[in-house]
Amino acid sequence: MSKGLLIVLSGPSGVGKGTVCSALRKRVPELVYSVSATTRQPRIGEEHGVNYFFKSREQFLSMIENDQLLEHAQYVDNFYGTPRDFVEETINSGKDIILEIEVQGALKVKEKFPDGVFVFLLPPSLEELKDRIQGRGTENQATIDHRMSVALDEINLLEYYDYAVVNDQIDLACKRIESIIIAEHCKVRK
Amino acid sequence: MSKGLLIVLSGPSGVGKGTVCSALRKRVPELVYSVSATTRQPRIGEEHGVNYFFKSREQFLSMIENDQLLEHAQYVDNFYGTPRDFVEETINSGKDIILEIEVQGALKVKEKFPDGVFVFLLPPSLEELKDRIQGRGTENQATIDHRMSVALDEINLLEYYDYAVVNDQIDLACKRIESIIIAEHCKVRK
Repeated sequence: MSKGLLIVLSGPSGVGKGTVCSALRKRVPELVYSVSATTRQPRIGEEHGVNYFFKSREQFLSMIENDQLLEHAQYVDNFYGTPRDFVEETINSGKDIILEIEVQGALKVKEKFPDGVFVFLLPPSLEELKDRIQGRGTENQATIDHRMSVALDEINLLEYYDYAVVNDQIDLACKRIESIIIAEHCKVRK
Repeated sequence: MSKGLLIVLSGPSGVGKGTVCSALRKRVPELVYSVSATTRQPRIGEEHGVNYFFKSREQFLSMIENDQLLEHAQYVDNFYGTPRDFVEETINSGKDIILEIEVQGALKVKEKFPDGVFVFLLPPSLEELKDRIQGRGTENQATIDHRMSVALDEINLLEYYDYAVVNDQIDLACKRIESIIIAEHCKVRK
């Protein structure tokens, strides 16, 4: 049996990674979703192993120590990370797995998992991205400018990715990513 | 405007290249078909520039001399070849072009056009290929054995191709090739 693929879907904040990833999982139901580990408390309705792997701080630090995370980051007081075991078990069972993650995290995953398929989601234009970042709500101009500047820095990291997919329409973006998965399975490994 | 792609569809005799190529052109009507040059006489209904570019022997030899063919071969008394101009004009205009060709010819095209996307069509199994070669009609056992042996030699050249597509069902094979084309357009060029 041949191995599955690790598909890493990334892109700047505001580009629509989450929306595209959800739509893609509906379109390709056999695609496994990489569940993150976190030290934050579960919210009502969240299930261990479905939404997150909930870990104590000690457990999480021990996972870092033992190289059991493909990447991790800290937001406010909580840790988030991608468990290596879950990814490896899935692809070894012949199934494809998708990891939706921000740009810096994706590059850390690439260091540990260079055989992954790294897909960068692009906005149709920078104006469109600005609209989406502004459209989120009540941020002031300085915050919006900062987010745009971070997004531009992230787009400059496109060269480290295998594929660039424009998110002009969700269904088109999903079709492109599905096509990338099909094509990668047809690749002659040399 | 970005350039189009040269898609080279190849594979052993009997694998169904022609059938898949026709079905693919119906599925992806914007895909341009690479028209061969030949010195053979036009048959009734054949049009210059549609079925073939009909050339005199002198014209054809001059095209070889002036490196105007990506590959050429002689069958019985006639020459056949792939005009370089038609391929280059098509991709420079931003359109994709598909070339359906036997395995040795494809490798010659690769020498002159390494940026092409080389797709090898595989039979679902060797038994299936034998059935298809036998099913063609009245060949004797020695001819069938010879064709199988040639096909096996050709399948050994798979490693020089970018993608392997199994022709188990025509519509599935077409979907895979269409996916390869979409994915190649999303590739980050480094």
